[in-house]
Amino acid sequence: MSVAVATVGDILSVEQAREGVLGTIDRTVEVEVIATADALGRVLAGPVRAATALPPWDNSAMDGYAIRSEDVATATEDNPVRLDVVGEARAGSQPDAPVSPGRALRIATGAPLPWGADAVVPVELTTPLGPDDEPSGPRGRDATGPLPAACLVHQRIPIGGSIRRAGSDIAADTILLDGGSSLTAAGIALSAGAGVPRVAVHRRVRVAVLATGDEVRGPDEPMGPAGIPDANGPGLRALVTASGADAIDLGIARDLLDDVSRRLEAGISAGADVIIVSGGVSVGPYDVVKTAFDALGQIDLWRVAVQPGKPFTFGTAPRPGGRGSPVLLFGLPGNPVSSFVTFELFVRPAVRRLAGQRSLLRPVDRGVLRERVSKSAGRRAFIRVVADRDPAGAPVRDSKGRVSVRLAGGQAGQGSHVLSALAVADALAVVPEVAESVRAGTAVDLWWLDRD
Amino acid sequence: MSVAVATVGDILSVEQAREGVLGTIDRTVEVEVIATADALGRVLAGPVRAATALPPWDNSAMDGYAIRSEDVATATEDNPVRLDVVGEARAGSQPDAPVSPGRALRIATGAPLPWGADAVVPVELTTPLGPDDEPSGPRGRDATGPLPAACLVHQRIPIGGSIRRAGSDIAADTILLDGGSSLTAAGIALSAGAGVPRVAVHRRVRVAVLATGDEVRGPDEPMGPAGIPDANGPGLRALVTASGADAIDLGIARDLLDDVSRRLEAGISAGADVIIVSGGVSVGPYDVVKTAFDALGQIDLWRVAVQPGKPFTFGTAPRPGGRGSPVLLFGLPGNPVSSFVTFELFVRPAVRRLAGQRSLLRPVDRGVLRERVSKSAGRRAFIRVVADRDPAGAPVRDSKGRVSVRLAGGQAGQGSHVLSALAVADALAVVPEVAESVRAGTAVDLWWLDRD
Repeated sequence: MSVAVATVGDILSVEQAREGVLGTIDRTVEVEVIATADALGRVLAGPVRAATALPPWDNSAMDGYAIRSEDVATATEDNPVRLDVVGEARAGSQPDAPVSPGRALRIATGAPLPWGADAVVPVELTTPLGPDDEPSGPRGRDATGPLPAACLVHQRIPIGGSIRRAGSDIAADTILLDGGSSLTAAGIALSAGAGVPRVAVHRRVRVAVLATGDEVRGPDEPMGPAGIPDANGPGLRALVTASGADAIDLGIARDLLDDVSRRLEAGISAGADVIIVSGGVSVGPYDVVKTAFDALGQIDLWRVAVQPGKPFTFGTAPRPGGRGSPVLLFGLPGNPVSSFVTFELFVRPAVRRLAGQRSLLRPVDRGVLRERVSKSAGRRAFIRVVADRDPAGAPVRDSKGRVSVRLAGGQAGQGSHVLSALAVADALAVVPEVAESVRAGTAVDLWWLDRD
Repeated sequence: MSVAVATVGDILSVEQAREGVLGTIDRTVEVEVIATADALGRVLAGPVRAATALPPWDNSAMDGYAIRSEDVATATEDNPVRLDVVGEARAGSQPDAPVSPGRALRIATGAPLPWGADAVVPVELTTPLGPDDEPSGPRGRDATGPLPAACLVHQRIPIGGSIRRAGSDIAADTILLDGGSSLTAAGIALSAGAGVPRVAVHRRVRVAVLATGDEVRGPDEPMGPAGIPDANGPGLRALVTASGADAIDLGIARDLLDDVSRRLEAGISAGADVIIVSGGVSVGPYDVVKTAFDALGQIDLWRVAVQPGKPFTFGTAPRPGGRGSPVLLFGLPGNPVSSFVTFELFVRPAVRRLAGQRSLLRPVDRGVLRERVSKSAGRRAFIRVVADRDPAGAPVRDSKGRVSVRLAGGQAGQGSHVLSALAVADALAVVPEVAESVRAGTAVDLWWLDRD
């Protein structure tokens, strides 16, 4: 075999096959620097560090007056302390003046603390005074309108009162986010908010998809008496997009070596990191995909103990110019359900590793199968299931916390040609190799199809 | 109030506020017809019906020979029945000939069943014969190479054996997918596979985002002594994108009526269905957003019993030309954590309703809070939490199936200015209005932030 993997009796376990695929990937795709605001869903190439502290400067948590705590040490409700109001501190500009003994600056929430001040008294604890030292308004309810000449402070305020200290959320140069994860909306807010205008991310992985088959018809081709519409091309390209990669459409090849080869070469020329071909990998008389792959690189037919999706071809081809990681070549079953499951188990983790994702597999949940299902002994089955849901749409869990699942499309839905069942499935339920059938009530591992 | 909502003591419950917002939406955005292959994540405007049956015609489930069942009724391992092989049925073309008594056609998996045949005998149950009626090869292992002159069938085959009937998965005109849901990769494979080249979907909702504040600086502006980087603009635009809508960037307005008004008008001219403004909605001295909104439409300050995010403004403005649903105007708190939670609770459901989604809210899971947390009595708190995870990354559930969650960023992380905690949060834990604090071990509802 060109790609060395351990085999057990000529058939690979799911893990052996996956490790064999992942073992061919010796580097991730290139890094590019893009605007943080445009990086939703992109994979960080390294840690993001705060460019500024947050908050960047001491600021007021309240509308009120910036003061010196010691000036109001004796203040009580009935014996307030009078302070001259000598200016204002607004968001976005430097305060008008420093705060010296006996003086205060009116300050807005979020405004930088003026030099000399060590506390903020909330406006609710003050009364504004006019130039004549008479109250110019009621006990403060808000800090709008003309600046008063002075104010009465009705309560002592400790040092640091109503102040948010610079760096109290984040110190400058703190690691905000680790590399190897996708940026979320909150991660973008955090990075942008900490003054990081651009981030280093991996470029999107490029995955070319080729459907094959003399019977397969494109969306605007007439069906004729023996045609069947192409499900795999659109379906696999959508899986590629949903996995965070860019899909390249190589169309539909006839079962002719020249046609398949020409399209594969177009995919490599277009810079594909991965090429997926659906169909043409069984051992029937018209299969040309393996021959076409053989001309490009090192390929083998892999037999994996999995249901559906047993046979697929996998290999690598050198990149044009010989630089960079080899191109990964996958030949998936022509059957759309098998190709979907094979994509999930083998292609998606490979795309994620190329993309620089640290986590490659979907998290496993616990489920309980509410119906009996039979399967092939010796193969691990990935049963398409639907979760029972409550009226709000949340999956129903039993007293042990296991999600209650049923066969998508019933027993008939488990046929590997039954697309309708796949489309309603929420998850794959994993049934171990040893079982020939499982009875209702059996605990299963669950792979949710919509969660990373 | 211009938008009529029931109030309790001048403060709205989360549900009242949400219903008030949703009640202003009397129609969804327009419908467009696009290629099925390009429709990942788009919301279906109506049901998708199969254009062809699946499979479109009776076809073979195996490589073998298409036969008449009655011809092989007496076949046994030792007394096989001999049939003339008169042609071939391949995928993608009409069979060479019909099957008449005593005759068979070689057939490939997936090929259309020839006229006259009512069963397929798998190649494994046959032996090929040459023109001399001597075996031309071993007991069949595959159906490749030159066509044999005849074959021996070693077993009786019932009518329908190894045949997939036309329409056995899907009958033509069957409803494949319901309107009001997003197209998944499997839904695309199903629709394309059933001959549906184009689907009617809602266009993407357009949401314009305006950050405000004299202190707020764009990604390439110098901070100066009183500047703070813009978190809300990039963060809210990313939330918009993650909700399936298109974000329109209205930049950062100074706290000046003219600047805010000019940018809001630009958003309306750009065809925004929703405009979100962050900042400027409290009652401080420099707030101009409500004034600018008032000039466009009908606006009110809403006080909602929620923590964080209590005050926000909401209203509607007529669309230019007066046609179509009014533009929704949201004024969110300037604080990024509050604006994020307010978006989740009120803006996202509105965007989903405009987009034609049937399901508006995130499914609710069950959690158990592993730490004590205090909150404001009378307000429903949405606590930012992190799930405990197993080594494979799946959330840990207790024996009752509840996800074990801790405070993101610890107690300090619950301050509404603490962006770092939001960025690591997996979910919002909901603590009811009545509680002032909750102790460790309390059961909570969970809103996962990454699930629809």
